[in-house]
Amino acid sequence: MAVYTDIGDEDLRAFLEGFSIGTLVSFRGIAEGVENSNFHLRTTEGDFILTLYEKRVNATELPWFLGLMQHLAREGVTCPQPVADRQGRTLLELAGRPAAITTFLPGVWPRSVRSEHCRPLGRALARLHLAGRSYAPERPNSLGPNAWAGLLQSCRAAADSAFPGLAAELDTALAATLPAWPGHGQTPALPRGQIHADLFPDNVFFLDHDLSGLIDFYFACTDFLAYDIAICLNAWCFEQSGAFNITFARQIMLGYEEVRPLEDAERHAMPVLARGAALRFLLTRLYDWLNTPEGALVTPKDPMEYVRRLRFHMATETASGYGF
Amino acid sequence: MAVYTDIGDEDLRAFLEGFSIGTLVSFRGIAEGVENSNFHLRTTEGDFILTLYEKRVNATELPWFLGLMQHLAREGVTCPQPVADRQGRTLLELAGRPAAITTFLPGVWPRSVRSEHCRPLGRALARLHLAGRSYAPERPNSLGPNAWAGLLQSCRAAADSAFPGLAAELDTALAATLPAWPGHGQTPALPRGQIHADLFPDNVFFLDHDLSGLIDFYFACTDFLAYDIAICLNAWCFEQSGAFNITFARQIMLGYEEVRPLEDAERHAMPVLARGAALRFLLTRLYDWLNTPEGALVTPKDPMEYVRRLRFHMATETASGYGF
Repeated sequence: MAVYTDIGDEDLRAFLEGFSIGTLVSFRGIAEGVENSNFHLRTTEGDFILTLYEKRVNATELPWFLGLMQHLAREGVTCPQPVADRQGRTLLELAGRPAAITTFLPGVWPRSVRSEHCRPLGRALARLHLAGRSYAPERPNSLGPNAWAGLLQSCRAAADSAFPGLAAELDTALAATLPAWPGHGQTPALPRGQIHADLFPDNVFFLDHDLSGLIDFYFACTDFLAYDIAICLNAWCFEQSGAFNITFARQIMLGYEEVRPLEDAERHAMPVLARGAALRFLLTRLYDWLNTPEGALVTPKDPMEYVRRLRFHMATETASGYGF
Repeated sequence: MAVYTDIGDEDLRAFLEGFSIGTLVSFRGIAEGVENSNFHLRTTEGDFILTLYEKRVNATELPWFLGLMQHLAREGVTCPQPVADRQGRTLLELAGRPAAITTFLPGVWPRSVRSEHCRPLGRALARLHLAGRSYAPERPNSLGPNAWAGLLQSCRAAADSAFPGLAAELDTALAATLPAWPGHGQTPALPRGQIHADLFPDNVFFLDHDLSGLIDFYFACTDFLAYDIAICLNAWCFEQSGAFNITFARQIMLGYEEVRPLEDAERHAMPVLARGAALRFLLTRLYDWLNTPEGALVTPKDPMEYVRRLRFHMATETASGYGF
């Protein structure tokens, strides 16, 4: 679930009085999401999402995220829009946390991915990439390749007692991936821009078979555009059985290239980007798995799911292994 | 949080096709609640709550709960109403669980209780009791006094290692409370009827300072009406500091007696009923505290809060100790 912080009645009332969005009708915590506390807020004027930003979000970066969401919407990408208060501010404080109200997006995220979700996903991802090109401020990817060795080091001992042999396997994967990473050493860099960096199925809403919007931009950053595709290959294309669904991958790429054709270098880099994406989610899940206290509100996700995905990518030499 | 079971897209779509409530617009898990999985469901026709009943609810009792909610609404008590499908059924199955759709109640539950909440609460509780008198089917209170010794026995050893001395304190409290319980031995019984039995602040909605509805009837049962008041004294009248707020208690009773004046025997029984109510919540919290596995979705509530409440009630000899 994702309600880490509760809000006093008077605090909420006073907070809402700062906005011109009517008076409170309903207010409930939202179960989805793991990083921040989210509430569905209904007022006499409509529906909104109230987000309290919890510890893992760097408050100084929030204006960058909110600015990106506003920019993307102006460029035609449907995503939550920060609502400004009477003084024009979108970022405030509530219950001792940074807080923002955003618009409510209709739609339902797919609990089970089907082929028909994947082409619209690819199109939406490419549109996000094109729309982001005119958003000038940059945010480095704090969970990019420079962070992985440190993440592994911080949980090496605990990792090996929980998952014998895992640390060595990750050392090998890191040693193979980092030197081959675009922009490192002789490897050419790839087109960069604003990426979502966490576009899992629960961040993509569909309505009547159409993609209706993207949410949760709080891992967005400035990085290789093709890396966002590699994240989607990890997040959308593995069956429960662990098998890679090459049809889904092809549909994502078909949709993407309708909007933004890949450069050859991006296509060729896909195996290493996919390894990197698997390492990024594996390492943060492993860290959370080993460091989540008993009784925590959020159950950590099993890192071994990503070990299997990493192994698939380590064995995949060319983009044709992904169907394109 | 309270989403124990997720629902496949096709399962949800097929389920909703059985109803005449429009097509799906939005679907999110609700963080509040600990017993069942609840989802806020928006369709083209409006807003609803979809509940999947989890293990602790006895499926054979669900028609009693849903029938009570329908009956109370006909008698003027605002509470969620089961929505019948095209075949007239209110109780169905989804994702392997019993499932029901109910209406969406506007309102916000009070995060911090204030005096002005308490009189409307008392009125609403008395109205519920009067309305319930014409609902004939009975449901025994499975968490009533007959259950307490067994609950304590089932966690005696673990309880004493987690909270040294607690088991002996609870033995003493049980030995003092059970023989004095209304209807036991020479103690006269009290007026009985349908009670909510779990009317904590998060089950009472307010809108613009008025009480707008009661929710979560899945502990409701047939028991002494005054016991429901005793539960509210426990649930609404203790400050964070542990102090008993006698103003709140008086306001609850004032509101209650506007609608249904107490009999003398009910008033006199209040200390023993309040002890019993504290024991009931203490014992189930203790059980959950000791038996919730690591990594569970719901963090168990600290049972010691109720030890302090129990001690207050053990030291309270007459109803005047509660301000009435």
